[in-house]
Amino acid sequence: MKVLITTSSFGDEGIQTLQKSGIEVVNNPYGRKITQTEAIALLKDIDGIIAGLEQYDYDILSKSKLKVISRCGSGLSNIDLDAAKKIGIAIYNTPEGPTQSVAELTVGCLLTLIRDVPRVNNLMHTGKWEKATGHLLKDMKVLLIGYGKIGKIVARILSSIGAKIFISDPFVKDEYIPEHFTKVDLNEGIKKANVIVLHSSGEDLILGAKEFNLMKSGVYILNAARGGLIDEKALEEALIYKKVAGAWLDTFQEEPYKGNLSKMKQVILTPHIGSYTVEGRQKMELDSVNNLLRGLGMTNK
Amino acid sequence: MKVLITTSSFGDEGIQTLQKSGIEVVNNPYGRKITQTEAIALLKDIDGIIAGLEQYDYDILSKSKLKVISRCGSGLSNIDLDAAKKIGIAIYNTPEGPTQSVAELTVGCLLTLIRDVPRVNNLMHTGKWEKATGHLLKDMKVLLIGYGKIGKIVARILSSIGAKIFISDPFVKDEYIPEHFTKVDLNEGIKKANVIVLHSSGEDLILGAKEFNLMKSGVYILNAARGGLIDEKALEEALIYKKVAGAWLDTFQEEPYKGNLSKMKQVILTPHIGSYTVEGRQKMELDSVNNLLRGLGMTNK
Repeated sequence: MKVLITTSSFGDEGIQTLQKSGIEVVNNPYGRKITQTEAIALLKDIDGIIAGLEQYDYDILSKSKLKVISRCGSGLSNIDLDAAKKIGIAIYNTPEGPTQSVAELTVGCLLTLIRDVPRVNNLMHTGKWEKATGHLLKDMKVLLIGYGKIGKIVARILSSIGAKIFISDPFVKDEYIPEHFTKVDLNEGIKKANVIVLHSSGEDLILGAKEFNLMKSGVYILNAARGGLIDEKALEEALIYKKVAGAWLDTFQEEPYKGNLSKMKQVILTPHIGSYTVEGRQKMELDSVNNLLRGLGMTNK
Repeated sequence: MKVLITTSSFGDEGIQTLQKSGIEVVNNPYGRKITQTEAIALLKDIDGIIAGLEQYDYDILSKSKLKVISRCGSGLSNIDLDAAKKIGIAIYNTPEGPTQSVAELTVGCLLTLIRDVPRVNNLMHTGKWEKATGHLLKDMKVLLIGYGKIGKIVARILSSIGAKIFISDPFVKDEYIPEHFTKVDLNEGIKKANVIVLHSSGEDLILGAKEFNLMKSGVYILNAARGGLIDEKALEEALIYKKVAGAWLDTFQEEPYKGNLSKMKQVILTPHIGSYTVEGRQKMELDSVNNLLRGLGMTNK
């Protein structure tokens, strides 16, 4: 069996696991995302791929003898899933990979945002000792928009700190929401919340000018989901008029981000690093290896 | 009954509670820490004090007709406790006040420290999009030095995030440490830990050059207890040689802090704001009011 790894980097542990199973491993020779033409040539004798975000359309898939594409990551928009099904190629992804990484970053950014840590830390680094009085998370009302894998972990952690959790997610049935959390519809939640955290899927706008108008004064906004879920101009306005006390964004309408929020000290900005941890990456790689072996019928794991 | 409030600020809610109990409230007329001479004059007809950090020695106490001193805060080093006992003055403090505030700040600074948030946030604020790969807290070994009120809350939260908790505290009996935490002696814990958090009482040095030598490479150090517990020079060295990957300090050997750690981007510095939250302050004020009423025999709460 011959397996191609197309991601620009991949850890030794995963490669060794493949080799121990008797698999010949071929690495991406270009060290960057491969093109369509390169893919067709590379895939000649390949049985399975550990795949990145390069494109797999009907043409490429039908010319290959692939049995499995195992994405190292959660998104599958780069693969023509219908074509793969028709041709009989098994597709896997690693949806659990980034979950804990995103959840931990969200909790950390929230707890430091409400205490003004970035601002006083920068002052200290220029020799200025200026105390700031912040807020406790305990007893705050936190609205989580989206109660999927990440939202669930964030809800559990924030609840253990003492926050009151409100959930808005039309795709989750009431019986899957723990008793000590409150399910709300979106507008009701927006009106009540001291903190609004986006962990939803999809690409449609959720927080625009209308929604900012409904919010309590002094609310905190956090987005680690998709940039397009928030109208960045409306957020900017709401920060200027102090309707919003502070915000953390890890995703943006356009990346790399170049907008005005970078001028505001009450905003924490991170460059889409929600999933960027050494340990989360390792887990994703090993999950993708195990999925590949399963797809090739070489393990029962 | 007449009560003096000496703290430089005090919320209306506490004052109203006192007045509703028929108490005449006198505020600190100076808006700053009062002197010995001022105290003697002010205390003339006063039955109880809501006290700050001004000094109460035998001379002042014996010349007063005080029945209660209720500290709004936890420290009692400004009061001659033996003299108060001899004269028959009841003393109270509010040890619970800062607990949750310090615990939440500790968790937030730890989670952002291991993801390099302060550095990438500052880069974003200068228009630079540079991803950083951090670490997961989940499965990290966290050594908590000190398992008092604050240490207990921090341990519970970090454990709920998935960290492995090790406790070093000679004053806590084994049976008071939950089964899923591990009690260790200090050096054993220091050798094992990926993260070391100080929440101990006392003023003696705990982490000096000898202890930094014992640590694992890449350890993170956090101190929200007392500045004197860490040798700042030894920490600086350990950061330079990357033995220590990052640190958060909220307390310092000398405050305001003016040392070299402020030149290091991998260090989060906050100006002793562990207890600084609006809600924590409110709780301390109401606790001090209830303690005062109890001391004057005016409530059973």
